[in-house]
Amino acid sequence: MKLTILGCYSATPRTFTNPTSQVLDIRNHLFLIDCGEGTQVQLRKNRIKFSRIKHIFISHLHGDHYFGLVGLISTFRLLKRETDLHIYGPKGLKEVITLQMKLSDSWTNYKLIFHELTSKESELIFEDDKVEVYTIPLQHRVYTNGFLFREKLGERKLDMNAVLNEDIEVAYFRKLKQGFDVENKKGEIVKNASVTLPPEAPKSYAFCSDTAYDEDKISLIKDVDVLYHESTFLEKNANLCETTKHSSAKQAATIAKKANVGQLILGHYSTRYDDISLFKEEAEPIFANVDLADDGKVFEF
Amino acid sequence: MKLTILGCYSATPRTFTNPTSQVLDIRNHLFLIDCGEGTQVQLRKNRIKFSRIKHIFISHLHGDHYFGLVGLISTFRLLKRETDLHIYGPKGLKEVITLQMKLSDSWTNYKLIFHELTSKESELIFEDDKVEVYTIPLQHRVYTNGFLFREKLGERKLDMNAVLNEDIEVAYFRKLKQGFDVENKKGEIVKNASVTLPPEAPKSYAFCSDTAYDEDKISLIKDVDVLYHESTFLEKNANLCETTKHSSAKQAATIAKKANVGQLILGHYSTRYDDISLFKEEAEPIFANVDLADDGKVFEF
Repeated sequence: MKLTILGCYSATPRTFTNPTSQVLDIRNHLFLIDCGEGTQVQLRKNRIKFSRIKHIFISHLHGDHYFGLVGLISTFRLLKRETDLHIYGPKGLKEVITLQMKLSDSWTNYKLIFHELTSKESELIFEDDKVEVYTIPLQHRVYTNGFLFREKLGERKLDMNAVLNEDIEVAYFRKLKQGFDVENKKGEIVKNASVTLPPEAPKSYAFCSDTAYDEDKISLIKDVDVLYHESTFLEKNANLCETTKHSSAKQAATIAKKANVGQLILGHYSTRYDDISLFKEEAEPIFANVDLADDGKVFEF
Repeated sequence: MKLTILGCYSATPRTFTNPTSQVLDIRNHLFLIDCGEGTQVQLRKNRIKFSRIKHIFISHLHGDHYFGLVGLISTFRLLKRETDLHIYGPKGLKEVITLQMKLSDSWTNYKLIFHELTSKESELIFEDDKVEVYTIPLQHRVYTNGFLFREKLGERKLDMNAVLNEDIEVAYFRKLKQGFDVENKKGEIVKNASVTLPPEAPKSYAFCSDTAYDEDKISLIKDVDVLYHESTFLEKNANLCETTKHSSAKQAATIAKKANVGQLILGHYSTRYDDISLFKEEAEPIFANVDLADDGKVFEF
């Protein structure tokens, strides 16, 4: 998996910082997560191919998480996109996007498929043979979901030396990868485990922004490899966490620890702080493996 | 007047170019004209004080002219703006903005006053003692207006040497500026013209984007000092002008010439051309005083 942070600052776009948006490259899918104003320019700056984006996940309808969506949809149209585009987000998103298309008399040539979310329970919203995506209901001022991206267990890998030693027909390789025993050229049964290696452990990534401190979500994100958790404030502004339903770096780290995740990435920083390293300093004593998101930063895991 | 081009390229925001938006500084008003995606960042980059913007004029509801508006309105709220904001634009604008405020449960603390336009005739939409603003109905694929900004005739200026010679009380200066004759300290009537100078000639600026070639508007923009006229294409792509209802540089120059304007500024360039100087080359043989808009460029007149 490769995660590219397009924007990770809260509230308003500024000269050198962008509101929330990220791209997750997972098993040949390019998932766009949130789409603040300016996302399409950030996609260009980070040389991400527009046509590879087929699924967009919107956490909630605060502007810093979706005001760039209508422009991106419109740009896809101007680029003569033909591929379907799936959009997952809170109810209301379809109305606001289609109203703007109606007013501009600019309908997309490609198919725009809205998957409007209303459930307060986690649900499976995307699945194919390689990946599944679940919502993570979050506690915020408006209806909000995080998203959990899980790779499925992949195919077994051929141990080529063993395969050649056993003299197995190429036509059987596919079956081997799928875990079956096969016959070799001499007509002998070859046990799958003797010529294949187990698949790589499937990875998982949880995106949690925006949210108040909330232990309810821990069971959903338990043991994920990487957790992006918002840390809008530092503990010294804990009162603002309460009123705005955001988290501090310490709270994010506490969730990471309790959920036993592999790595924590912080983001959604309030622009009141000049130095984002303070967020890391606050989180590290509670959860050691913590990184700071920043616009343009890439995480591979 | 001082005109700052925030963005002047058509269609989509790109890494180094922005969709339409400009700021007109006219007699202490700061008018924002159109508001494509990214306008708020362009305002910051050009160090324009957000709080000075009290009137926003939107030509039409194609995204490259207004997708930045909802974000700007939202940022004004986050900046704790208290001043009224007047927005002039096509019917539908209020619905799309208020829908987005409703969905985010983020209502402005300041007063948002929509002046929705529907007339196909030119109308006076703003007036105070210094400035008036008229719509310029344009021919485009959707309902579109340009805007004509006219300074009113200012006050007369005191000819200080003459005023001192005549020994006139300071209390009368205001009346002198307003054109009245006054008494001097000796009780003699002093003719206004003998101690004052005529006011500066009022300037005018016409913004015409987006529009097909259309001579109907010539009477409305006759003799303006500065005309911004879109030139999306070059003549070699005249067929695209027809189908998309845009203008070529040559057509813009022809309008400038027929309307006898003082200066022509071209903009709204299609991104298919690598070199915008081609627009100037095409326009110049028809209308000599032509300039090219570019993002961040400032025109003073």
